[in-house]
Amino acid sequence: MDLPLEDLDQALRSRAARVIPGGMWGHQNITRMPVGYPQYFSRAEGCRTWDANGRGYIDYICAWGPMILGYGDPEVEAAAEAQRRLGDGMNGPSARLVELAELVVDVVPHADWAMFSKNGTDATTACLTIARAGTGRRKIILARGAYHGAIPWCSPSVVGVTEEDRAHLIYFDYNDIASLENAVDQAGDDLAAILVSAFKHDLGKEHVLPTVDFARRARALADATGAALIVDDVRAGFRLDLGGSWECVGVRPDLAAWSKAIANGYALAAVTGNDRFREGATKIFTTGSFWTASVSMAAAIATISKLRRIDAVGIMTRMGQRLRDGLAHQAARHGVGLQQSGPVQMPLVLFEGDADRRLGHAFCLALLERGVYMHPTHTMFLSAAHTEADIDATLAATDEALAAVARL
Amino acid sequence: MDLPLEDLDQALRSRAARVIPGGMWGHQNITRMPVGYPQYFSRAEGCRTWDANGRGYIDYICAWGPMILGYGDPEVEAAAEAQRRLGDGMNGPSARLVELAELVVDVVPHADWAMFSKNGTDATTACLTIARAGTGRRKIILARGAYHGAIPWCSPSVVGVTEEDRAHLIYFDYNDIASLENAVDQAGDDLAAILVSAFKHDLGKEHVLPTVDFARRARALADATGAALIVDDVRAGFRLDLGGSWECVGVRPDLAAWSKAIANGYALAAVTGNDRFREGATKIFTTGSFWTASVSMAAAIATISKLRRIDAVGIMTRMGQRLRDGLAHQAARHGVGLQQSGPVQMPLVLFEGDADRRLGHAFCLALLERGVYMHPTHTMFLSAAHTEADIDATLAATDEALAAVARL
Repeated sequence: MDLPLEDLDQALRSRAARVIPGGMWGHQNITRMPVGYPQYFSRAEGCRTWDANGRGYIDYICAWGPMILGYGDPEVEAAAEAQRRLGDGMNGPSARLVELAELVVDVVPHADWAMFSKNGTDATTACLTIARAGTGRRKIILARGAYHGAIPWCSPSVVGVTEEDRAHLIYFDYNDIASLENAVDQAGDDLAAILVSAFKHDLGKEHVLPTVDFARRARALADATGAALIVDDVRAGFRLDLGGSWECVGVRPDLAAWSKAIANGYALAAVTGNDRFREGATKIFTTGSFWTASVSMAAAIATISKLRRIDAVGIMTRMGQRLRDGLAHQAARHGVGLQQSGPVQMPLVLFEGDADRRLGHAFCLALLERGVYMHPTHTMFLSAAHTEADIDATLAATDEALAAVARL
Repeated sequence: MDLPLEDLDQALRSRAARVIPGGMWGHQNITRMPVGYPQYFSRAEGCRTWDANGRGYIDYICAWGPMILGYGDPEVEAAAEAQRRLGDGMNGPSARLVELAELVVDVVPHADWAMFSKNGTDATTACLTIARAGTGRRKIILARGAYHGAIPWCSPSVVGVTEEDRAHLIYFDYNDIASLENAVDQAGDDLAAILVSAFKHDLGKEHVLPTVDFARRARALADATGAALIVDDVRAGFRLDLGGSWECVGVRPDLAAWSKAIANGYALAAVTGNDRFREGATKIFTTGSFWTASVSMAAAIATISKLRRIDAVGIMTRMGQRLRDGLAHQAARHGVGLQQSGPVQMPLVLFEGDADRRLGHAFCLALLERGVYMHPTHTMFLSAAHTEADIDATLAATDEALAAVARL
């Protein structure tokens, strides 16, 4: 493909270096990625995105999860636009709030109620606060290495964080029942909550689904101690099961945190809970200036309704399986040791014996050149807008990329 | 006016009682207000809003601050719509991020850089984390009773909050130099930041502007100790001075938190800082799934550009002064002891000797009946969409409302 005469991505990076610390904050700082990834994007539609230099990609990051029906899905956009003409943020919520809460309670089996906010971190933090308010206790046990947000109690970094910010956290190893029990013992009669991710999706590590035994044990321990079982479904929500990701293992939490895909890209997060924690949720003070804004709620209603109607989980599962099977077949043919993990709708693709990521980076860069955007270490995302033709076009690119990796 | 046959607000409250804890969370729970206020809204345009029952109001809450150019301002909406057609959340930011950061750095004298997020609380929390990262220290001193957000370190409630969440906070009294000095002494060599609101705008209490002496002393103490001076401009930002509210007292912070009015209602927040804290801001990890979304940034560019072009601060000052003068004149005529405080663009109207809020509630309810939405205890907001005709229509209503209060 022809590169533009001017490298707009590089020009924007130079300008950003002056007015944005480090050029970009957080996980979207491209210096965390192999050289060759674009920092800036100019356009997105369906399952495709274009970088600032105009190069188009079939997208397997989906805006880091929020895009689930396709960028600019017409049904979602029409609902958002209709609400926008009426009003977005006002002095209070609109009827959309009640309609959305009713829909969520209808779709999510554990939910007797719902509350809404803007960030995944808002939702996980509110879950902790509700659990503490509801139990009158302080300790939270959670899995080592799990990502639950980016404020001091949960940030993956400790820069600017004080010891006290994490004073009441006790860690266990995901899927390790003995370590879970040990953590519960340590918390003693001060256990407010057991906090678990939908599945183990730590950065750069093989993704692992919860075992049924682990999930049941977490539920039983919460019941025995009176603590809350919280599932952090921010990343996985709406891709594994519309009713919550632990429906897959037959275990229902007391509280769950949601965000990302809930409104197909509109900024929204949610906490759902059961009646045992309704009083705790009522007593806490949590709010934000934009939390009752109606456009994102109208978008969420349209998103969840369409996800249910078209069986989006089914579509993503079929497309994800097609991608996984194709990759496995190609890897065997090229003699490359591929380590595919995570649910097929949220794949992670690693290479065996690739501690320095040399193979993973080469693979992803070869894909970028061929118009496919994958990530070497982060959970990826399928959407309901990915078609068989998109998967097959992707597999044509991966075949060449794996051939290149095989030559390294 | 005619009420609808059906009370839609009440119907929505009944439905919400089932699926939302307490019917509503946070400051927007109408049970915090006198009986008679609507919980639900159906529409907003210019400086007017309509509740779920179709009753229209001239609005002095402005969606709790975010609306500053008028609901649905055509310039802001056109910019947002143009960006929406390209893309909102994508795998990285668009050029709008760089353009917005450049604009903010241009408009805000203390700013050498900017970062963006979604909630005011995101911004105040990032300021603390940056100050701690930049200084390697832990203590934050802040004014007793000030509102800086709604997560455990700063929430006005302690329900679900642990002691450790506030372990490194030391309190002083706003505008009280001796108590500020005492707090700085207490922090010793562990002082990371002095955090101040743009002005004292505690709920239900007379609002007070910072004195020049207090502001200068805060700046001098930060300089002498190497701590950061942080101005929380979330509520006041863009209404007192586009360059930051402490420009009014000639003192520049090292860091400032912004949100609310920055994008005329689109969910966005910002941290600005100077070069002394660029490294701290670079080192911390802060992020969110929707933080690089471009539509809110396009809206912010349009909002700030228009605010500057039309001298919105001047408009709000003139309209606010017209309202204040009119109210003062009416109160004197009716023999009612009115206590008007805060900058005229962000007024608080209290009644003398009204500890139980009987007069304030009666005043506000009388205004509601007359199509004016004011708040009895919270900072109110003027916008650049309020015209002389709107203020005069408001004053016609306040004249009757004050007459009613005078009869109590």
